[in-house]
Amino acid sequence: MQELLSDFAERRDWGPFHTPKNLAMALVGEAGELAAEFQWLDPEESARVLDDPAKATAVRMEMADVFSYLLRLADVLGVDLETALREKVAINEKRFPADTSR
Amino acid sequence: MQELLSDFAERRDWGPFHTPKNLAMALVGEAGELAAEFQWLDPEESARVLDDPAKATAVRMEMADVFSYLLRLADVLGVDLETALREKVAINEKRFPADTSR
Amino acid sequence: MQELLSDFAERRDWGPFHTPKNLAMALVGEAGELAAEFQWLDPEESARVLDDPAKATAVRMEMADVFSYLLRLADVLGVDLETALREKVAINEKRFPADTSR
Amino acid sequence: MQELLSDFAERRDWGPFHTPKNLAMALVGEAGELAAEFQWLDPEESARVLDDPAKATAVRMEMADVFSYLLRLADVLGVDLETALREKVAINEKRFPADTSR
Repeated sequence: MQELLSDFAERRDWGPFHTPKNLAMALVGEAGELAAEFQWLDPEESARVLDDPAKATAVRMEMADVFSYLLRLADVLGVDLETALREKVAINEKRFPADTSR
Repeated sequence: MQELLSDFAERRDWGPFHTPKNLAMALVGEAGELAAEFQWLDPEESARVLDDPAKATAVRMEMADVFSYLLRLADVLGVDLETALREKVAINEKRFPADTSR
Repeated sequence: MQELLSDFAERRDWGPFHTPKNLAMALVGEAGELAAEFQWLDPEESARVLDDPAKATAVRMEMADVFSYLLRLADVLGVDLETALREKVAINEKRFPADTSR
Repeated sequence: MQELLSDFAERRDWGPFHTPKNLAMALVGEAGELAAEFQWLDPEESARVLDDPAKATAVRMEMADVFSYLLRLADVLGVDLETALREKVAINEKRFPADTSR
């Protein structure tokens, strides 16, 4: 997926814009748009958000935007997202022990 | 990865908190913390952000946080992130033709 | 200003949607849209962003959106923003002494 | 308030860091931290968030952070926030007519 996105950017000469700073800023902008899809929904409505086809497309495309900037940022910085996630889960296992975190 | 995160939440009875609305809110909060790591850096500094070990850990762990909430949200909603991303790239191929988007 | 916004919401029966949680979520969504206006600009371009009338309107209206949700949140929670800001500045005066924070 | 914040930044030589781009990024980062205070609360809990003194301080200080970066951004860009807000409300009066927006 990272190659697909890297190719996409390269064929448009967008490399110089894709600094880590700009990508982090784009990522939070897209995360804000994703959050906006849920802002007026109550918890139950938010669970059924994909039932409405127009809303489902909007949510899925915003999630894709967030994912694409996260992958681009990881690619540009040379961060392995899977390794980072496993490290974070290991940290959280200690920080939130299962038996006392319920 | 989604199973790992789903298990983690389940063993702590966190399921009821992981509504799509709450996960979207947590995601944008973490994206904001990730952006904060870059806010005072100029473009060149942002490209070298991993050279400082403490900063590198902070950036990697914030990226892991964003990734984990994105994966949880995808899991809870039943969204296939890879499919969504490929659809979005196809849309963007038309929206930003390579020859005119440089 | 808070009265103006409270009246606006009340005449539309939007009160039930304006929980602190929803308003905080709307605020970060709008802050994300504001950030998006700057995401591909270099520092110098960002300083001249108001020179382009279309861009100036977009930036000013996004700033107004952030301001309006911040004022609504303050109103709903009963927070005095000016007092809170003065307290925060007093805290920061100690945290970042002027002579060592240059 | 803008003078207070401008003075604070000036006495620390922070002017060069306070580009509109950096301030917009800092603003969304703080908005993300504010949202994080509410992310696991249900609507009723979010309405009572100030009842817990520690949480009240956290929420008030995050709101002050958002406000301070919004005021700094307005100052640096030369945007009059009150005028911008009145313009936006006028636009929204037309966009969401009171009698059909309930």
